Amino acid sequence: MRNSTRSDIDPFIVMDVMEAARAAEAGGQDVIHMEVGQPGTAAPVAAREALAATLDAPLGYTVALGLPDLRAEIASLYTRWYGVSLDPSRVVVTAGSSAAFLLAFTALFDAGERVGVAEPGYPSYRQILRALSLEPVGLPTHFAEGHRLRPEALAAADISGAIVASPNNPTGTMLAHEELASLISACQDRGRAFISDEIYHGLHYGDRAVSALEISDDVYVINSFSKYFSMTGWRVGWMVVPEHHVRRIERLAQNMFICPPHASQIAALGALSADAEAELEANRAVYAANRDHVVAGLSTMGLTHFAPPDGAFYVYVDVSAWTDDSLALSQRILSEAGVAVTPGLDFDSLRGGSMLRLSYARSTADIVEGMSRLARFFAT
Amino acid sequence: MRNSTRSDIDPFIVMDVMEAARAAEAGGQDVIHMEVGQPGTAAPVAAREALAATLDAPLGYTVALGLPDLRAEIASLYTRWYGVSLDPSRVVVTAGSSAAFLLAFTALFDAGERVGVAEPGYPSYRQILRALSLEPVGLPTHFAEGHRLRPEALAAADISGAIVASPNNPTGTMLAHEELASLISACQDRGRAFISDEIYHGLHYGDRAVSALEISDDVYVINSFSKYFSMTGWRVGWMVVPEHHVRRIERLAQNMFICPPHASQIAALGALSADAEAELEANRAVYAANRDHVVAGLSTMGLTHFAPPDGAFYVYVDVSAWTDDSLALSQRILSEAGVAVTPGLDFDSLRGGSMLRLSYARSTADIVEGMSRLARFFAT
Repeated sequence: MRNSTRSDIDPFIVMDVMEAARAAEAGGQDVIHMEVGQPGTAAPVAAREALAATLDAPLGYTVALGLPDLRAEIASLYTRWYGVSLDPSRVVVTAGSSAAFLLAFTALFDAGERVGVAEPGYPSYRQILRALSLEPVGLPTHFAEGHRLRPEALAAADISGAIVASPNNPTGTMLAHEELASLISACQDRGRAFISDEIYHGLHYGDRAVSALEISDDVYVINSFSKYFSMTGWRVGWMVVPEHHVRRIERLAQNMFICPPHASQIAALGALSADAEAELEANRAVYAANRDHVVAGLSTMGLTHFAPPDGAFYVYVDVSAWTDDSLALSQRILSEAGVAVTPGLDFDSLRGGSMLRLSYARSTADIVEGMSRLARFFAT
Repeated sequence: MRNSTRSDIDPFIVMDVMEAARAAEAGGQDVIHMEVGQPGTAAPVAAREALAATLDAPLGYTVALGLPDLRAEIASLYTRWYGVSLDPSRVVVTAGSSAAFLLAFTALFDAGERVGVAEPGYPSYRQILRALSLEPVGLPTHFAEGHRLRPEALAAADISGAIVASPNNPTGTMLAHEELASLISACQDRGRAFISDEIYHGLHYGDRAVSALEISDDVYVINSFSKYFSMTGWRVGWMVVPEHHVRRIERLAQNMFICPPHASQIAALGALSADAEAELEANRAVYAANRDHVVAGLSTMGLTHFAPPDGAFYVYVDVSAWTDDSLALSQRILSEAGVAVTPGLDFDSLRGGSMLRLSYARSTADIVEGMSRLARFFAT
């Protein structure tokens, strides 16, 4: 059998780094993981207890849009976090933000349409768009502007819509209210769709990130239990869509997914309970300490060319003084220093050769040790 | 924001039936559920125990193709069930068969290509194909031939590939080895892709269903833990692909799904253990008893126009002597007899107006009561 051309997508370079790190560990090397974009912590105790309590019930299909209680609790999160009143009927529970991207792109764009993505940015946007016969259009952002997408760039692009993340992956930088509002206007004024990827919301080190729902109801917002709620492998997230899109999304979700994983939905309900809050805020405090340690450490190593992260758990640092081949550099760092880091090429195929992404999602002890090793590496 | 045309898909009529049944129950009516395509039983005890034992570990992302142990256990199932030796590297764990359909259609077909689907058949094939900008091509099957797709029909169609299910939903009929082999040849001889939907394997009432892997390695096989393993809401299934397709599927899966739900993969490992076998075979014995009761009961009601099901837990019965509006009839059966059944229109938009699908997946007590109510209804 022959394959389609649309399945001819780029490899995920971070996966090769993870495999190399695994092989190094299997060979007896001690590796500090600063490549992985996921918490080292388990789902909150309240989430696991909620699931344990229902494990003997038949966990059959739920309705396609998700458990009504979970949709209601997610809606009330918007009041708590942003002061936004949100009708639960607009909340769509999904199998992680991955399923939300598939639903959003399918609901909004027909084959051949062009969709804007910021560069550097989450690499799967491009690959999912291609798999859906859509054309990703890279919109470069710049260090001098904190890697914030400029509304003029969005307005000038020949696109049917765009997806924008704040906090951004890999830079951790956030958009202020008026910056996000300008981007939304740049799309809405031209009849284009705007998708706001808010998967790192909850993980901020100054002001809370602004949700697109504070600005407009005529947007798609995508979020997940993976990051702040420490539930990556559970594959449960959500989307908020305009009221008149709900029925269409429901039909797509019924057919494409039937429903999000039932057990994960129950665990997610636990993660939203008041019992989980202290644990999740303690996790955030760890990331905040890690962030400060990484930011200070990089500067003492002479790695000063990075935008200070406002949220998420990444820093995206310029290593052009060392290399224009960040993949080779990351391989040297792994083998010589025992630290796994991600080359920038996944996030920006043009300029990522001189960039590395460091993740500080693991324990502070790990991050302290990882930064010491990096300091020795870059001192030699 | 405007919507895409490809998201303009048909409603799932069974969902409306389920909603009407829910409303009737909320209003105090006792309803027997013969509309739902899922077991009433929970996941096997061994599956739930496996998960309970690991619930305190961080269930992070797994590798995209699934837990290596699970892939190995699925491969060994092919030896136990079919005597086929299968390399675990060809097994792709998916978020239910839904994710497998998305991966298979994306990997094999480009936008605008035509894909054959048997009619009557699983309605989501058509809707997923449309959402992926593909064109479903209905290939009618006939009662007189047990709703088995004829290889001549497949050969004559202008298509790039086809998806075929045995046992079929909604008819429960199966293809013999030589029938399935003829269908595979009809595709392979013309350079077309063949996808075998084997989601109801394990649920047979005579000989075991034949897997396409007994015939050829150059096919995609899709299966799931939902039906035989009684794990619908867990969203975990699998796909077997030709060796030279694995790397491409891996890249698609990494980007489109990251990984299948980790907790569900652990539960699935438990469901494949020897401990679960007696429980699952006991479930199958219940379906077998239900099947015999339904087949005998329909005949005494004068509803004799159906193909005796070989597998799955459905019977697809002709009610043309009563109506050409099966949706209205199913609404009457719900309100007057208190039995929820599925109109055939979901499975066959042209001829389904005179057909009903009955599911016998619930307990025998439920099925006995449901059939008594149907007997009274059809006697009036």
